[in-house]
Amino acid sequence: MAAVIRLSDLNRCGAADFAAALGDVLERAPWVAEAVASKRPFATVSELHAAMLAAVRAGPREDQLAVLRQHPDLAGTAARAGAVTEDSRREQASARLNTLSDEEFARFHRLNGAYKEKFGFPFIICARRHTLDSILAQFERRLRNDPAREFAAAFQEVFYITRLRLAAKVSGEGLPQVNGRLTTHVLDMHLGRPAAGMAIELYELAGERYFRLATAVTNEDGRTDQPLISNQPLPIGRYELRFGVGDHFRSRGIEQGDPPFLDVVPLRISIAEPEGHYHVPLLCTPWSYSTYRGS
Amino acid sequence: MAAVIRLSDLNRCGAADFAAALGDVLERAPWVAEAVASKRPFATVSELHAAMLAAVRAGPREDQLAVLRQHPDLAGTAARAGAVTEDSRREQASARLNTLSDEEFARFHRLNGAYKEKFGFPFIICARRHTLDSILAQFERRLRNDPAREFAAAFQEVFYITRLRLAAKVSGEGLPQVNGRLTTHVLDMHLGRPAAGMAIELYELAGERYFRLATAVTNEDGRTDQPLISNQPLPIGRYELRFGVGDHFRSRGIEQGDPPFLDVVPLRISIAEPEGHYHVPLLCTPWSYSTYRGS
Amino acid sequence: MAAVIRLSDLNRCGAADFAAALGDVLERAPWVAEAVASKRPFATVSELHAAMLAAVRAGPREDQLAVLRQHPDLAGTAARAGAVTEDSRREQASARLNTLSDEEFARFHRLNGAYKEKFGFPFIICARRHTLDSILAQFERRLRNDPAREFAAAFQEVFYITRLRLAAKVSGEGLPQVNGRLTTHVLDMHLGRPAAGMAIELYELAGERYFRLATAVTNEDGRTDQPLISNQPLPIGRYELRFGVGDHFRSRGIEQGDPPFLDVVPLRISIAEPEGHYHVPLLCTPWSYSTYRGS
Amino acid sequence: MAAVIRLSDLNRCGAADFAAALGDVLERAPWVAEAVASKRPFATVSELHAAMLAAVRAGPREDQLAVLRQHPDLAGTAARAGAVTEDSRREQASARLNTLSDEEFARFHRLNGAYKEKFGFPFIICARRHTLDSILAQFERRLRNDPAREFAAAFQEVFYITRLRLAAKVSGEGLPQVNGRLTTHVLDMHLGRPAAGMAIELYELAGERYFRLATAVTNEDGRTDQPLISNQPLPIGRYELRFGVGDHFRSRGIEQGDPPFLDVVPLRISIAEPEGHYHVPLLCTPWSYSTYRGS
Repeated sequence: MAAVIRLSDLNRCGAADFAAALGDVLERAPWVAEAVASKRPFATVSELHAAMLAAVRAGPREDQLAVLRQHPDLAGTAARAGAVTEDSRREQASARLNTLSDEEFARFHRLNGAYKEKFGFPFIICARRHTLDSILAQFERRLRNDPAREFAAAFQEVFYITRLRLAAKVSGEGLPQVNGRLTTHVLDMHLGRPAAGMAIELYELAGERYFRLATAVTNEDGRTDQPLISNQPLPIGRYELRFGVGDHFRSRGIEQGDPPFLDVVPLRISIAEPEGHYHVPLLCTPWSYSTYRGS
Repeated sequence: MAAVIRLSDLNRCGAADFAAALGDVLERAPWVAEAVASKRPFATVSELHAAMLAAVRAGPREDQLAVLRQHPDLAGTAARAGAVTEDSRREQASARLNTLSDEEFARFHRLNGAYKEKFGFPFIICARRHTLDSILAQFERRLRNDPAREFAAAFQEVFYITRLRLAAKVSGEGLPQVNGRLTTHVLDMHLGRPAAGMAIELYELAGERYFRLATAVTNEDGRTDQPLISNQPLPIGRYELRFGVGDHFRSRGIEQGDPPFLDVVPLRISIAEPEGHYHVPLLCTPWSYSTYRGS
Repeated sequence: MAAVIRLSDLNRCGAADFAAALGDVLERAPWVAEAVASKRPFATVSELHAAMLAAVRAGPREDQLAVLRQHPDLAGTAARAGAVTEDSRREQASARLNTLSDEEFARFHRLNGAYKEKFGFPFIICARRHTLDSILAQFERRLRNDPAREFAAAFQEVFYITRLRLAAKVSGEGLPQVNGRLTTHVLDMHLGRPAAGMAIELYELAGERYFRLATAVTNEDGRTDQPLISNQPLPIGRYELRFGVGDHFRSRGIEQGDPPFLDVVPLRISIAEPEGHYHVPLLCTPWSYSTYRGS
Repeated sequence: MAAVIRLSDLNRCGAADFAAALGDVLERAPWVAEAVASKRPFATVSELHAAMLAAVRAGPREDQLAVLRQHPDLAGTAARAGAVTEDSRREQASARLNTLSDEEFARFHRLNGAYKEKFGFPFIICARRHTLDSILAQFERRLRNDPAREFAAAFQEVFYITRLRLAAKVSGEGLPQVNGRLTTHVLDMHLGRPAAGMAIELYELAGERYFRLATAVTNEDGRTDQPLISNQPLPIGRYELRFGVGDHFRSRGIEQGDPPFLDVVPLRISIAEPEGHYHVPLLCTPWSYSTYRGS
């Protein structure tokens, strides 16, 4: 990861250094950074971000389209060949777009073609805010938009992409909230205490496949020492948490049937707000459980 | 299925007819039916069953072993070749033993060999009371038994097998309870009413595979018109019920996130009592759910 | 209670007998029964009821007002002195209107006065469908109605009163549904089974006072042998069910703190639908419980 | 409240000052503080406390009895007349012992008499760790102890009393944990969010009476800004939390029946660990709720 620059330094440095530092925040559109250099100083990183997007919106539609057109195809041949910016490469990898089967690659190819034919620019989505599942769902949904609505949708994604890039590059006041958290908490209602030592797995669902994202064991307070996901946007998509409830009660010597009525308990949830906090507790006995969106 | 005989007819008929009717209740041991003909009349089917097993237990150990040895190998070559009784064939099919991959077949072959070498008779299990998963788990567990304990375990399975065969062949007073029931009930706690029209699927788990056993839609009372399983023993094993919670609330127009926080809700349970009633309700809102072993 | 008459007999008998049998269904308005005698036969009791109310509605407004005016004051001096019909007396007693303190009596007196001054007829409410609490709440709410709305509200109550009277007097086809049921079910989620032998009390709330309506003990299925209320309308109002959870777990020897975290568990609910089925289960461990409107 | 002294100052000061500062930690037994002055320095407040009790235990039984006998009768005539130490007065007031009816006062008088006759010293209990209800329950339970067990029980209470007095007088390292916390958290599962603005009341139960201890309104996170009880031991006893669930959903315009199925929801719990954290959440919809001992 590139070095982080302080907002105060960006406010003070020469226009050329400013433009060099932020030139790739908008994909292959260094003119945007150049255009906002004269608006300095910025009180917050969010203000800087807003100024960059305002500069794009202030320009003629052709320039706006040019910004959109600079984006590489999602999971396209350029991405496969490595001919995209480092940011783009990393962003696409976050949604497993670099590990597609030939069949999936062909599907993206078809969707990219249909999309560009309809709208005149490539499909843009902030890949770090989505799972592969969600990207495909969005692709098919947005393909049905009318042009005006889709133009706005594409710019909303440019907003998300550039916000994440800025938040990674610049430190200082007014950093936008770009990360979310997924946490859990297990309470053993047979004992009336937090369930300590219970194994937890987190999976991402992609079609019929499951990708394991994290494993953890609950501590004395029934929580995991670290959130299951944190320090990143929570990718929109479907997830399954799996709790070793049967092993937990077996280790306590509790009668629970053979095989145990509850063994591995799966909680399947979807995340819709990448910058949110999802707290998904489990209250369990050997014979019952409940879960809810907590806080 | 063969015609059902009334207990009263069995009590009245000639000894030869009696023996002919019940000759195959104990696998290839028609002498047992012959031996109990003189004990008639039987007040209940359970008494008749008890008398047949008592006749076996009253005999010398060699005769008991002979009874056990008449059982075909589970998923063995005889079963594959169709050289087993019709009852046996049907029983083994109930646990998918007729659909094994070559690898699974080889595993059973190894287990059968090890078992017979250790105990001197084939592994016997009442296949209709177990899933494939559970049969494999029992096989490996019982292989570790000492001979006395395993001899008793094998006879317990003969008890279950013959009880099911008798219950299918004979009608009348005192029929043993051989069937179980799996039911569910869905309550929509957002609305305070039973959830009508919700899709439910039932899967059996076998290793990493899922077999769909049933699909249903809830009625106005939030129940399924028929139990998810009934009129048979509930095979011991792991199951997953899946509820279309997201579609239910979508059809009611309720805000639930996009994608919905809860979409397909899986409840994964194990059944340990084949003759029991498992009632597994789901209480749900778009943001929470709970389940429990009900009654 | 007077003898029940069969609808078929009412359809066949002389007009005078018919009128005599049903003359007091509408409070002191025997002309209504007389008027509908010629409409016989009635296929169902509900049809008979509808015909009686239609006869009232078909008449001039003065006759309708006369019907309303025949009703005694609620908890009024006539009721205190016993100068009301037997039906009226019993109906008022069902809502404890015969046990008012002097202060409550005075409050009713004031409300009756204000109501009659505003609307020109006494406040009518089907007392058997309400608790004392609810009658007072309705009285104050309806006093704020405009005359047209209140005229309709009063007739709706005449509908309820006469429906109950008819349902008690006449048997036969098409009996209207006039009764509700309050039931419960206790599941011990520490054990995974219905909680047997747990004491339950049911209270009606009246202002700050509690009236105990029923006591019961759960059976092997965790239910009460009889509904907590049945064979009558469920009076609209507030109730508290109290469950002896602490004693239950103490009798099972379960650690639950000293004093137990949960001892007597109160569930406070309101009933709004007198003809409905309220099922209020309790799922409990020594450390948690939940309840819901079941079905 | 008297000024708090630093442990470091107590370790350094003259023996007379030390004894003066701590002379009344043990009721009317200043010799104890004198005896431990020579053991200084103490690394922690808990060590100082342990040393004081060790000094009592090291002495002859007569001195130990003398320490017990210095305690005033609970709710006795001395307490009524104000002839007890200020600490004692404040401690007894915390459990409402200063507000007894004549009947209750007489009951204490009888119990005190029976206790002293059986054991030879007054009934001692750390009143700040108990509600009035619990003190009466303990009184009757301990009256049934044999003398050896009760002698130990009385000293355990001296431990609690003196620990609280020391924790109030001395600051510094190793302060014993003497306070508990009662907190709640309300989640609106109809909305999938914390319930903001919900009114909560906390009551202590004493026999059939209720004393309101606190009122609060939930904040945006569904919690109360301050714990319902904190900065003190949680008195052992029975409590009721009442939640304005009906008003909450009414303010959101949600259909919930009329009157609402759930209006004021009472959660009745007992506290058994005065130094513990009791977290008692409420998860609710208009038609269901659950609670549990959380963490």
